[in-house]
Amino acid sequence: MELVNDFNEYRAKMNERILGSENKVIKRIFNLDTNAFADGALDSKTKELLGLTCSMVLRCDDCVKYHLGKCHEMKFTDEQIFEAFAIANLIGGTIVIPHLRRATEYWDSLKTS
Amino acid sequence: MELVNDFNEYRAKMNERILGSENKVIKRIFNLDTNAFADGALDSKTKELLGLTCSMVLRCDDCVKYHLGKCHEMKFTDEQIFEAFAIANLIGGTIVIPHLRRATEYWDSLKTS
Amino acid sequence: MELVNDFNEYRAKMNERILGSENKVIKRIFNLDTNAFADGALDSKTKELLGLTCSMVLRCDDCVKYHLGKCHEMKFTDEQIFEAFAIANLIGGTIVIPHLRRATEYWDSLKTS
Amino acid sequence: MELVNDFNEYRAKMNERILGSENKVIKRIFNLDTNAFADGALDSKTKELLGLTCSMVLRCDDCVKYHLGKCHEMKFTDEQIFEAFAIANLIGGTIVIPHLRRATEYWDSLKTS
Amino acid sequence: MELVNDFNEYRAKMNERILGSENKVIKRIFNLDTNAFADGALDSKTKELLGLTCSMVLRCDDCVKYHLGKCHEMKFTDEQIFEAFAIANLIGGTIVIPHLRRATEYWDSLKTS
Amino acid sequence: MELVNDFNEYRAKMNERILGSENKVIKRIFNLDTNAFADGALDSKTKELLGLTCSMVLRCDDCVKYHLGKCHEMKFTDEQIFEAFAIANLIGGTIVIPHLRRATEYWDSLKTS
Repeated sequence: MELVNDFNEYRAKMNERILGSENKVIKRIFNLDTNAFADGALDSKTKELLGLTCSMVLRCDDCVKYHLGKCHEMKFTDEQIFEAFAIANLIGGTIVIPHLRRATEYWDSLKTS
Repeated sequence: MELVNDFNEYRAKMNERILGSENKVIKRIFNLDTNAFADGALDSKTKELLGLTCSMVLRCDDCVKYHLGKCHEMKFTDEQIFEAFAIANLIGGTIVIPHLRRATEYWDSLKTS
Repeated sequence: MELVNDFNEYRAKMNERILGSENKVIKRIFNLDTNAFADGALDSKTKELLGLTCSMVLRCDDCVKYHLGKCHEMKFTDEQIFEAFAIANLIGGTIVIPHLRRATEYWDSLKTS
Repeated sequence: MELVNDFNEYRAKMNERILGSENKVIKRIFNLDTNAFADGALDSKTKELLGLTCSMVLRCDDCVKYHLGKCHEMKFTDEQIFEAFAIANLIGGTIVIPHLRRATEYWDSLKTS
Repeated sequence: MELVNDFNEYRAKMNERILGSENKVIKRIFNLDTNAFADGALDSKTKELLGLTCSMVLRCDDCVKYHLGKCHEMKFTDEQIFEAFAIANLIGGTIVIPHLRRATEYWDSLKTS
Repeated sequence: MELVNDFNEYRAKMNERILGSENKVIKRIFNLDTNAFADGALDSKTKELLGLTCSMVLRCDDCVKYHLGKCHEMKFTDEQIFEAFAIANLIGGTIVIPHLRRATEYWDSLKTS
């Protein structure tokens, strides 16, 4: 729970600070996120999984946390998450494993929070 | 059509050559691919999209081509493919655009082949 | 000259095809490019160099070509371009060298076109 | 201020340890840094921005911190820094955002230190 | 010593949790590691160095720590480790330096543990 | 043979052009290569393998070709090369496979040239 709260608080605080800089390009990039992951020709659950695995192969712990949070809200099961992890691990190689460890820890924290 | 055939022929020829080297580790990695993308807790169509977007953000043209070929067999629509492209483009940034161009050209070739 | 024309023609053709897909997220990402590189608190010449070196360390030949084309229009000298290359080469390491070769060839083509 | 001091102290201590290993190749790479970023055909302020944005798209927090420190000494304004961030964010994609958060926090620390 | 113990404990705990998920693909990837680094046409000491430098250029601190632990057991000398570091630093560029700092700190911890 | 000659000729021609630019930083980076891969605490054969696998996980075809050329001169066997490939494939994941195909084709060309 601490892991989850710390991540969300820091993320919210710094996003506010960044958007407060009034840089138009950054603001628009932040806004595009909502659009890109909304229901469309692909449903939002599928899109969230795309976000999760892309974040994993690019090895960004915070991006993985963000998408895991969304996946948790969307009621993905453990088995589904680990199948997505497996694809990321296979495509991205063993270099992904340390991120897989931290992702699994975070996923478990989400379930108890 | 030429794009598609050239890719498939070279891929098939070189995979055979590599597997002929009798290196066990490489053989097993190649075999894992079939497992990872098979129906499970997630269906194979969703998994193929994960493969596609991960390949796109990692900027591997040949991996993108391979997954586009599979997506074509699975009857994904243009709109669905472009929504997956959009997520990859947003997460991976404009550095992904040249790969998006080649992917679009290949996708169009698949539709006429 | 052929290098330059081939690149520009393929880029223009495929960008038109991609934007014709009517995917809003991709369209907006393409539009952001114009904004991000326009004169502002930093002048557009400085920004173009940022685009060039970022493309070089991320090892994207086509992105490098695009920014070199802009740098050529903006009258950067050989010495300036090579100092930018040097920073990219130092930060990105010797893995960047093959891209440096193709970038230099393209830069020379721009000067004779 | 703590963020800034911690970074600088650890960096100084470990650089000294690494250079003490007497490995010639590493020593020369460290020395090249001074050369590459000195005034030349491009001025050192422009070069520092190149270092900053390259570090950002390559997603190295410590490299970003180092160049932000230099940018602070060189009196770059908030607006200029955020325009450089915007280019890195656009080229590198939303995967860069968590690094943007930490970079912004560090930049704010520099201003109060 | 604390650095080393913390790393090993977290790694062991999370690997157990991940393997407990009973995902076959992930399990097989974990198993391949043992095979790939065993004595063969290349001896295991050479292979460990390959693992170390690949981890360094891919900038994965935890992977570097894992391979440094193995290199320490295999009695590599300081000079040998720094020559491997130098190659990774040259190929991967100065972006590797922050990882080099943490790797050196960990290597020194191993020697006193 | 054509693959090998084309690579070597282009590489030689463009390296000469780049070094002719008289940029000191780039010149020194090029010179460091000879130093880093010379016999030292680690022998030059081991170092060449480090260069090969690092190039493979970083997915740079031309860097792989260069190191394969050196490995061929040093009389590495097929089995040794494929064990190095296997480690790169495992660490770097299936995203490395297209580069493995081109590397194998080039290695076979070297043996018949």
